[in-house]
Amino acid sequence: MIQKFKKHINQHFPFLDGKKLLIACSGGLDSVVLTHLMNKLNFEIALAHCNFSLRNKESDGDEMFVIGLAEQMNIPVFAETFNTHKFADEHKVSTQMAARTLRYEWFEQILANFKYDHLLTAHHLDDDLETFFINLSRGTGINGLTGIPSVNGNIIRPLLVFSREEIVTYAKKNNLKWREDSSNQKADYLRNKLRLEVLPLFKETHDSLLNNFKTTQNNLQSSKKLIEDYMALIYKLAVSEDEDFYRINIQKLKELPNTKDLLYELLNGFGFTEWNDVSALLNAQTGKQLFSKTHQLLKNRDELLLSKIDFNSQMKEFFVSEIGIDSPIKLKIELADSMDETTKNLIYLDSEKLNFPLKIRKWQEGDSFHPFGLNGRKKLSKFFKDEKMSILQKNKTWLLLNEDKIVWVIGHRMDNRFRVNEDTQSITKITFIGHSQ
Amino acid sequence: MIQKFKKHINQHFPFLDGKKLLIACSGGLDSVVLTHLMNKLNFEIALAHCNFSLRNKESDGDEMFVIGLAEQMNIPVFAETFNTHKFADEHKVSTQMAARTLRYEWFEQILANFKYDHLLTAHHLDDDLETFFINLSRGTGINGLTGIPSVNGNIIRPLLVFSREEIVTYAKKNNLKWREDSSNQKADYLRNKLRLEVLPLFKETHDSLLNNFKTTQNNLQSSKKLIEDYMALIYKLAVSEDEDFYRINIQKLKELPNTKDLLYELLNGFGFTEWNDVSALLNAQTGKQLFSKTHQLLKNRDELLLSKIDFNSQMKEFFVSEIGIDSPIKLKIELADSMDETTKNLIYLDSEKLNFPLKIRKWQEGDSFHPFGLNGRKKLSKFFKDEKMSILQKNKTWLLLNEDKIVWVIGHRMDNRFRVNEDTQSITKITFIGHSQ
Repeated sequence: MIQKFKKHINQHFPFLDGKKLLIACSGGLDSVVLTHLMNKLNFEIALAHCNFSLRNKESDGDEMFVIGLAEQMNIPVFAETFNTHKFADEHKVSTQMAARTLRYEWFEQILANFKYDHLLTAHHLDDDLETFFINLSRGTGINGLTGIPSVNGNIIRPLLVFSREEIVTYAKKNNLKWREDSSNQKADYLRNKLRLEVLPLFKETHDSLLNNFKTTQNNLQSSKKLIEDYMALIYKLAVSEDEDFYRINIQKLKELPNTKDLLYELLNGFGFTEWNDVSALLNAQTGKQLFSKTHQLLKNRDELLLSKIDFNSQMKEFFVSEIGIDSPIKLKIELADSMDETTKNLIYLDSEKLNFPLKIRKWQEGDSFHPFGLNGRKKLSKFFKDEKMSILQKNKTWLLLNEDKIVWVIGHRMDNRFRVNEDTQSITKITFIGHSQ
Repeated sequence: MIQKFKKHINQHFPFLDGKKLLIACSGGLDSVVLTHLMNKLNFEIALAHCNFSLRNKESDGDEMFVIGLAEQMNIPVFAETFNTHKFADEHKVSTQMAARTLRYEWFEQILANFKYDHLLTAHHLDDDLETFFINLSRGTGINGLTGIPSVNGNIIRPLLVFSREEIVTYAKKNNLKWREDSSNQKADYLRNKLRLEVLPLFKETHDSLLNNFKTTQNNLQSSKKLIEDYMALIYKLAVSEDEDFYRINIQKLKELPNTKDLLYELLNGFGFTEWNDVSALLNAQTGKQLFSKTHQLLKNRDELLLSKIDFNSQMKEFFVSEIGIDSPIKLKIELADSMDETTKNLIYLDSEKLNFPLKIRKWQEGDSFHPFGLNGRKKLSKFFKDEKMSILQKNKTWLLLNEDKIVWVIGHRMDNRFRVNEDTQSITKITFIGHSQ
């Protein structure tokens, strides 16, 4: 295997030559074999081991093993202990996701702080095959079938063309020692079912099944790249970015073939699952909207507006002191000696008509006000409509209120009732600085 | 199942309403169930049964069964017997491919002659799953994983969302009779291995595995369409069609991201398998070429020229009589009273210098001639080079010879030695009409 490995490295990763390489080493079979191979080829390597504290003494044993391996090879070793369960609880993610996040963040730190050029991981072809089947079992798309890339940024996976069998054979031939992960044997029902029952039978269907599988994944990776290139064109053509939402031009999408598939590809990744409803939005009335767990998709005339949902902000009220407010928007409030020009973001009010603290909140059904420049009262919903504001823009707009009367539709129009007139003794100047992050 | 089927038809194939439908009916479980379902929903159906003469009495039994089924339902039936082995031998294809070709050709005839609007076939979800795994086992790409489309031209597959289990259950519940195909039980090792061993285990990995698989295939179909749309753009941009070959503009391809993947996608389907060699052509010298079993790919300056291989024509010689030749090119030969203007496709020769029959053949290494308008002899290869002809153009060019002397590089230049001069008594006019198909 060493010859095949050497050839593979020379052919596909010639840039590794002379670099400082960090190997992610769990102490298991795969990473131990990778470590041995790289060491035999005289690369400058160090080991990095994560102790996720998930298997108590066994985890500590793994750590000791990797440290011992490094000492034996006389190479540097980094080891760190993580409280994975705590991280998972705090960030509301699975233990697996927590471990993954902690691992890669820490690896990045080592790469940066100790000037290592690349991280090497020991994923192999059977890992890819299992992942392919796991995703297939759950239902997936091309992204779930393409497998792990062998080069992804500064992460390199030199064993991806090798089978588990080749790796085991090498380890036994060279009398290598490694640690068995007891959780491999039980925890992951689906992966084990595939590894132990389904895939051995499937492998019997063709002599070079793993090679054929590699071919398939290469072809799928190729297809995936082309879709990405195409979508980059489509994105330029039909999507524009606003401050904190995206505008998708429906007309442009409709002029292209396979509009629904394009829409799926554009919105895939924002949590939508009801694709019939999503594509029905293309021909829906303005104002129709859909929600995923994280995002809102709104039909607005000839556009779809995609934005992150901020469920809380719509309800909340914030008090505004005499000097202004800093969250969720920035307002500056000051007394003024004289008036300059009123703009959308700068108004002048009669101080005596204001009773601090003022409030800001979003619009509600039934709101009305006396728009500056018009006679009398107007429903806020009518005002928004006449201003041709989308629902998203409406929902983003803050109102400034004095005792439940609208003083200012911030960034749009102030109210007649609070304006400066002949009788004004003191002028209050309010400036809208912007939205907070 | 009948309710689900009805809903499925209404939702996805509303256009079938009121149409004349032909059902491909082998007499097996799937097509018998499809026939019953369509009959119950009162569609106007007829059955078409192919007897491929592959299983002797059993084949004839199937035919009788289908005819009986149609009589029982009081619907029209078409049955035809094919000599599949003979067709396969004659066309050098597999029995399976022969049966497929015969079947669909015959169905098209019935549709056309008897004015049926659509052909319905009984493929179901397990067929798709098996095909997915067969292709995966052999190595494939996105096209091998997307499955059969439910609508393809006028072919409709209304059972594609149903599992074999649902179909069996329906058949048993309704006491349907069908024919078992004994070849199913043995001939197709790979499909049976998957159907009986691998897939039952794989189905245990998820409660709704078949639904998830359907989702996967829908997503892949969507991806496939986008790739096709993208490739249509790329084709317009970088490929042009000549009389019988394609020109691929290398520079244009190189300006695009993922050039090699684009090249793969463009050439996939022309039998090339050594993709590293293919992509190496992008930077190879002019004249470098690759061959698949059916096609030639030639680097020519900033282009790749793709053409069908015609292995025979390069070697052959054809005699040219006093009135011309009709294959593989058309030449018209006649005596002329006077001379008009000489063109690339029309020359005048001194009749006395010609000794019929003349010959035509393609160029060979070492050929030389006396180009009209130049002094003396020139190597044909040098002439081609000076004319900036690509290898493909050279290989397409025919030479007219008189006793092994080149009379005319047809369509390009005649030879000095045969030209009309002061002493000419009789003029022969030769016209190049064109290439034969």
